[in-house]
Amino acid sequence: MINQAEIKADLAIEARWIVPVVPQNQVLEHESVIIKDGRIIDVLSTESARQKYDAEHTIDLNEHILIPGLINLHTHSAMTLMRGLADDLPLMTWLNEHIWPVESKMLSSQFVHNGSLLGCAEMLSGGTTCFSDMYFYPQATAEAALQAGMRANLGLVVLDFATPYASDADDYLQKGLESRDSWRGKPLLSASLAPHAPYTVSNSSFEKIITYAEQLGLSIHTHLHETQDELAQSITQYGVRPLRRLADLGVLGPNFYAAHGVHLDDAEIKMLHEYGCHIAHCPASNLKLASGIAPVKALLEQQVNVGIGTDGAASNNRLDMFAEMRLAALLAKGVTADATAVPAAQALQMATLNAARALGLDEQIGSIEVNKLADLTAVKIKSPETLPCYDPISHLVYTLGREHVSHVWVGGDLRYQKLGDQEGIFANIEPAELREINALWHGRLQQYK
Amino acid sequence: MINQAEIKADLAIEARWIVPVVPQNQVLEHESVIIKDGRIIDVLSTESARQKYDAEHTIDLNEHILIPGLINLHTHSAMTLMRGLADDLPLMTWLNEHIWPVESKMLSSQFVHNGSLLGCAEMLSGGTTCFSDMYFYPQATAEAALQAGMRANLGLVVLDFATPYASDADDYLQKGLESRDSWRGKPLLSASLAPHAPYTVSNSSFEKIITYAEQLGLSIHTHLHETQDELAQSITQYGVRPLRRLADLGVLGPNFYAAHGVHLDDAEIKMLHEYGCHIAHCPASNLKLASGIAPVKALLEQQVNVGIGTDGAASNNRLDMFAEMRLAALLAKGVTADATAVPAAQALQMATLNAARALGLDEQIGSIEVNKLADLTAVKIKSPETLPCYDPISHLVYTLGREHVSHVWVGGDLRYQKLGDQEGIFANIEPAELREINALWHGRLQQYK
Repeated sequence: MINQAEIKADLAIEARWIVPVVPQNQVLEHESVIIKDGRIIDVLSTESARQKYDAEHTIDLNEHILIPGLINLHTHSAMTLMRGLADDLPLMTWLNEHIWPVESKMLSSQFVHNGSLLGCAEMLSGGTTCFSDMYFYPQATAEAALQAGMRANLGLVVLDFATPYASDADDYLQKGLESRDSWRGKPLLSASLAPHAPYTVSNSSFEKIITYAEQLGLSIHTHLHETQDELAQSITQYGVRPLRRLADLGVLGPNFYAAHGVHLDDAEIKMLHEYGCHIAHCPASNLKLASGIAPVKALLEQQVNVGIGTDGAASNNRLDMFAEMRLAALLAKGVTADATAVPAAQALQMATLNAARALGLDEQIGSIEVNKLADLTAVKIKSPETLPCYDPISHLVYTLGREHVSHVWVGGDLRYQKLGDQEGIFANIEPAELREINALWHGRLQQYK
Repeated sequence: MINQAEIKADLAIEARWIVPVVPQNQVLEHESVIIKDGRIIDVLSTESARQKYDAEHTIDLNEHILIPGLINLHTHSAMTLMRGLADDLPLMTWLNEHIWPVESKMLSSQFVHNGSLLGCAEMLSGGTTCFSDMYFYPQATAEAALQAGMRANLGLVVLDFATPYASDADDYLQKGLESRDSWRGKPLLSASLAPHAPYTVSNSSFEKIITYAEQLGLSIHTHLHETQDELAQSITQYGVRPLRRLADLGVLGPNFYAAHGVHLDDAEIKMLHEYGCHIAHCPASNLKLASGIAPVKALLEQQVNVGIGTDGAASNNRLDMFAEMRLAALLAKGVTADATAVPAAQALQMATLNAARALGLDEQIGSIEVNKLADLTAVKIKSPETLPCYDPISHLVYTLGREHVSHVWVGGDLRYQKLGDQEGIFANIEPAELREINALWHGRLQQYK
């Protein structure tokens, strides 16, 4: 047979199932994704693909589901070094006696780089291709993301008090913007302005942040309405709840996304919709710190865009978007007594396209569509706990876990793979490097246990 | 050096960490578990163990945590064949249009055996060594458990309506007791009487069950207070809520354990305590079917013994006790606004010793103690998402998953292992057998999707 394929491509991925996320609820069977220069140039039947394209590499995923790479909309990746350092404690004990003492003594660019690299390894191997981070020394997290080959939105954190990283709000802003300058032009990286939270950032700092956001076209990423204490303190200090205060300051808009949103009344949900704001739902962290449960069903009904995040490993204790999707879908049903709340396809969309939208990247990532970047994750349906599979979308949310991830591509580059009889392999992270990081920081931090 | 070891043993497991569950919160480091004739005969420092014991086999778990095998206190293992067949539906649509039509057409001894074997493979590979089952054709589940080498308590199900398995309550009872006779003398197996639920079992049937339970010394396992509908229906039909009805009938006692207990008021919690009853908490299923969230913190505060179960894969969609432990611990905090509710050690105890107690097996299993049966699970701390590890007990509940299980012993026999560079291997289940089961039943059931 003469090969009539005429169009050159870099990679053809032939998949048993593809769940493209757009349109919602679609499952393609025996189709291929064709990739060139890091982008998806076609999605078509594998039979047609073999005739139409001459791909340099072809990969056969005949037992797999291919999905858009998962997007972790809110994390502090460096905090993997504090995974399980303190659990089952009230929030203030946890912060005062464990997290803050460690940060005040240990925080450094190396801490952040090493923790972020460990976090990137965890996220990649769990099918996450992009994360939105908020932490000190964002430059160090940027370097880890570049090494791992992950897409990242780095939050340029701003606080009104001093840490080893910066002295005051202006210093945080200056350092953050300098960091951003250093990675401009790297296509994997973008930045947000990240005022830490309404209770740690003053009005005047928020006003500066608004100015920079407008001038530089940046998103704003913050923690919001996480705990009842936060609301009470805001009423005492400002006379209004935090969301109202941010609205009055002019912070809210389509470039604003907030982690948590646990405590939101109907008027506030409406306000989020009217301003076009986004929520990063972090169900595991909200449960673990006993903050509560965000009103996700109501948010979605009011057309607020809701993505999903893991928060940091100090309060989760995983950066596991499969676990987080499942928890989001289960929890929404249980707390509303409505088994149809957050069906599987919606949970998957929250962990992909909705998060891309919050980051302003929904033209680039978040679904498997022609012209989008080839950020892709494959999961394998073979082991007993994955069988039978009647509905791949149900499986993605309720049955499968990070352990079934077999391949992860970012911008068409294979960044992680786990073949049938091997441990997972990263393209550019050596197991020895992670072992050294673990040995170093375990040694330094265990005294705080 | 002369080997001075004098005492013969079958197996010495040298572990980096041992979490014996009794006493709670204890972590042993560099100790060994010594096994002879299927029982634990010693737990001591590895250094001493090497001097004292001459073990036929020694296994070095130098990166692992060794725990008692997990006990799944409520499942319907055969329903793995209906995993993901129907999701995101209201309970009655789910039952009427999906689950019951499949059961009425497909139910057979072969269905139950095949589904149970798949379920056993999933449970074993996830660190579960013992399960309490309730389904039709318990003999078929018993055979699957014996093949897998798992410990099981088989519920002899009783309903007041006909299914392909039996025609009426007397027929269910007779068939159940005949099944039990066939496996008596098998040390891995035990039985409970399993009236399905208050809404499917009449008073006269409950009275017969009480008589048999007393005569034969059997436990009673039922579904209880799972949904609001169940409560409303009971009030309409019997004038009281189900728990009160069962109390009046004389069903309640220390041999009674009930799945769910989602809707329990303070008086009912007190009643459960006074009668010495046990609850099998099934958080994922209760969320997924939108039944609600059981008052676990209150139950534990009132000294009600609470174990954990997965329920069936049709409503979970996993038989994953690691996921269930984590969810139980997280959920209890989130719904009570108390971050100290159900700490990690308590969640682990619920999934081991508490479940053993509910089954009347706490003298035999549920902790790593001398004279107990060697039902043991090892998990490996090596991959990025498991590092660092400051606190093995925290890790077991919040960080680790079924994917980290490396070895599972039941009664001292190695029933599952996954070495570093291999897929998991079962002692007595061939992958080809599971593939055949999947192909057969996927083909038959997919029409009901």
